[in-house]
Amino acid sequence: MPLNPASDAFLETLTKALPADTIREAEPRFQEEPRGRWTGAATHVAMPRTTEEVATLVKLANEAQVGLVPYGGGTGLVGGQIAPSEVTKPLLVSLERMTKIRAVYPDENVLVAEAGAILSTIQDAAVDVDRLFPLSLASEGSARIGGLLATNAGGVNVLRYGNARELCLGLEAVLPNGEIWHGLKRLRKDNTGYDLRNLLIGAEGSLGIITAASLRLSPRPAKTGTAMLVVSDPTAALSLLSLARSTFGETISAFELMHRTGMDFLAETLPEVRLPFADIPEWTVLIEIGVSGGLDPQEALETLFGEALEQELVSDGLIAQSEQQAQDFWAVRERIPEANRMIGAVSSHDISIPLSAIPAFIPEGIKRLEAVGAFRVNCFGHVGDGNLHYNVFPAPGHSRAEHEHQRDDIKRVIHDLVHEMDGSVSAEHGIGRLKVKDLERYGDPAKLSAMRAIKAALDPKGIMNPGAVLREGTY
Amino acid sequence: MPLNPASDAFLETLTKALPADTIREAEPRFQEEPRGRWTGAATHVAMPRTTEEVATLVKLANEAQVGLVPYGGGTGLVGGQIAPSEVTKPLLVSLERMTKIRAVYPDENVLVAEAGAILSTIQDAAVDVDRLFPLSLASEGSARIGGLLATNAGGVNVLRYGNARELCLGLEAVLPNGEIWHGLKRLRKDNTGYDLRNLLIGAEGSLGIITAASLRLSPRPAKTGTAMLVVSDPTAALSLLSLARSTFGETISAFELMHRTGMDFLAETLPEVRLPFADIPEWTVLIEIGVSGGLDPQEALETLFGEALEQELVSDGLIAQSEQQAQDFWAVRERIPEANRMIGAVSSHDISIPLSAIPAFIPEGIKRLEAVGAFRVNCFGHVGDGNLHYNVFPAPGHSRAEHEHQRDDIKRVIHDLVHEMDGSVSAEHGIGRLKVKDLERYGDPAKLSAMRAIKAALDPKGIMNPGAVLREGTY
Repeated sequence: MPLNPASDAFLETLTKALPADTIREAEPRFQEEPRGRWTGAATHVAMPRTTEEVATLVKLANEAQVGLVPYGGGTGLVGGQIAPSEVTKPLLVSLERMTKIRAVYPDENVLVAEAGAILSTIQDAAVDVDRLFPLSLASEGSARIGGLLATNAGGVNVLRYGNARELCLGLEAVLPNGEIWHGLKRLRKDNTGYDLRNLLIGAEGSLGIITAASLRLSPRPAKTGTAMLVVSDPTAALSLLSLARSTFGETISAFELMHRTGMDFLAETLPEVRLPFADIPEWTVLIEIGVSGGLDPQEALETLFGEALEQELVSDGLIAQSEQQAQDFWAVRERIPEANRMIGAVSSHDISIPLSAIPAFIPEGIKRLEAVGAFRVNCFGHVGDGNLHYNVFPAPGHSRAEHEHQRDDIKRVIHDLVHEMDGSVSAEHGIGRLKVKDLERYGDPAKLSAMRAIKAALDPKGIMNPGAVLREGTY
Repeated sequence: MPLNPASDAFLETLTKALPADTIREAEPRFQEEPRGRWTGAATHVAMPRTTEEVATLVKLANEAQVGLVPYGGGTGLVGGQIAPSEVTKPLLVSLERMTKIRAVYPDENVLVAEAGAILSTIQDAAVDVDRLFPLSLASEGSARIGGLLATNAGGVNVLRYGNARELCLGLEAVLPNGEIWHGLKRLRKDNTGYDLRNLLIGAEGSLGIITAASLRLSPRPAKTGTAMLVVSDPTAALSLLSLARSTFGETISAFELMHRTGMDFLAETLPEVRLPFADIPEWTVLIEIGVSGGLDPQEALETLFGEALEQELVSDGLIAQSEQQAQDFWAVRERIPEANRMIGAVSSHDISIPLSAIPAFIPEGIKRLEAVGAFRVNCFGHVGDGNLHYNVFPAPGHSRAEHEHQRDDIKRVIHDLVHEMDGSVSAEHGIGRLKVKDLERYGDPAKLSAMRAIKAALDPKGIMNPGAVLREGTY
């Protein structure tokens, strides 16, 4: 049964049931997304102030069989927050008025926030009680915790602290039938029934709307150490990671791999970025450790460097001697995406691969791309998590526009290879609307039918984020 | 529609479809469980050798609508592995012939094991490649990984490494329709659809049979330090935990709280256990740290002790000066359950509470029990996780038998209080058959209806572990 549009009569019903000003016309900002790939077609947005108001509007939408598209900070990269015109005029639901930090429990390492709270606000609230909320990513100044959890966001600290999933102890959410699930537990251990929390995390709003979360805080590392080490190839990088893990245990906060292409791009487009080595090495690792007490991180990195030299895993290296130098090292890593944009990628891939397959994957991808055309590959990323950004650029002297028609072929070549190697075609961004077909192609058939059965069971009318994750009409 | 019994005709069908000797009479060991509370009534057990054989038998059971009770090591404490007579003669499915370690990837910190592999075998396989599989609990010599994951087992290392859930990267499982889900990913990041892995973990076999798992290994801490510290009360213990966390970060492997009642019981029943302090303190904390390199754990614990003395969090303490002394400290903690059994508890409770509620919970529980009768409470456990064993004993000179009729009242008083304080009535043991009514009483109604909808969607005939977690006929 197809969805009904959010008609004037339906909006009128909502307006009567909810406080004035809850239902509004959708401003242009709701129609845009960071990659400019979709333009939203929702005419209205609901801005509830309380969980009860969310429940009221979901209940009415369920009765009227009108689609709802939950909206967090709007920073998603796969279009999950967009109401595209293919879907019968759904209603956006923005959580931006539910931004309270409801409670902080420093001794429990727990913070309870409403879904609309911005990530950087939560980070600051944790610092205020001398704690760390370790989720950290480029969009932290505008991404909201509800959306970050709905998409199981990753970021730079996953190696040490896990994804958003691992940072969440409990949820409050409105399920598709309008019932409120009061699941804001603050417990480390709770084995009472099915794991509804993890089911909603990563469901991208297709099984309900997260309204609040209890989040796990960590102690703040007292001291940080940063180093840039030159490795001969990805195999050496992985051995270095192994060695670093035996030496430092859980204190490695970041372990990033960069190919020389990224630094070449920086030299070409952003000459103000200080490159650490006079000759750009083929492969460089950026490692950061954060220790709590007793250890001198610089000394520890020196020991690692010495041992890695002896084992011939690294050939050169620099250990940051000051906060400024550490920032310079990070600038290299963090400005590569900017350089990439200036060069202009034909196709970008957010993939993950089992660690031991990475050394074979990187050259094999390049080889297979040769059958499509002449490209340059910039491969870099969170190698400690097996998460690579594998971005494909035109050969020097050629433009992105020339290759526009090959984008789908390139994606297919890379994603097929990722799939063959037991990897994931969406490591941290999710499925949204962009990768629905990839999920159909690469997803395990038994898992897909279980997903469809769950969707049909919890949301029989299909009102929650229609068209995201699962194609409409397939459940 | 009620289930059909595993009739002779059905067993005959299975026997034809599967290799000889797969279907056997159930020996007495399958009818027993550690607490002696249930006696199983299954006459037969299937012992498949491969995932495909599991799939075949689930498919046939689903067609015939015959109940299946998955059986791991049989060590569960809530009766989830037992086929009681209330259920229409189901078939047991023991995974004990599927015990292979399929692969070990030391550089990835990953090990892939079949569901029937015994925990200690997996621990040993990790040590063989100089890694740690940190799941550790009393029954590790007989518990099997499939059951440990199905029940999301806890144990002594949860504070540092998480529950079984956090140690699992991927699953292979047979779903109730007989389809095999090939989900043995070895990835740290994979955001492609609903989290079926975490849904099966903790579902106690009621949504499918786990046949294999990819497990997360850790580096082995190079050195360990252990201390016994005397605190005035649980509030001081929690402040000490906070201080230890700021000092040691993630390196705290255990943080256990013990009340003097436990040591009194030891002195009374097991005089050979060496108690660390001449006068038994009211409250004692056992702390263990494991560090990877650079740090001297004894020195670190001395620093903590000094600072805790200064802040008046502790009044006395001992830091183990040898491996033997560390073992003596642990013997105190580990033999308390034995002493408990010799004294004879009227009722035991596996509960968790938000950390900051613990100081209020302990005396309030004692106060409320006074309305039921005169009891002694031995409260001890994994306080770092908020997980307490809150065990209720007769007053001196009285017997357990005198209080037998009050057990349900005692459970009600304690569980009601736990629920009021936002805790969990099953921290690590699960629901099984023992706590089905507790789940109905204390579970969130919206979550319960979502659970029933999921159960009905994935297992419409209700064949998977009937009567466990959810009462038959309620989904």
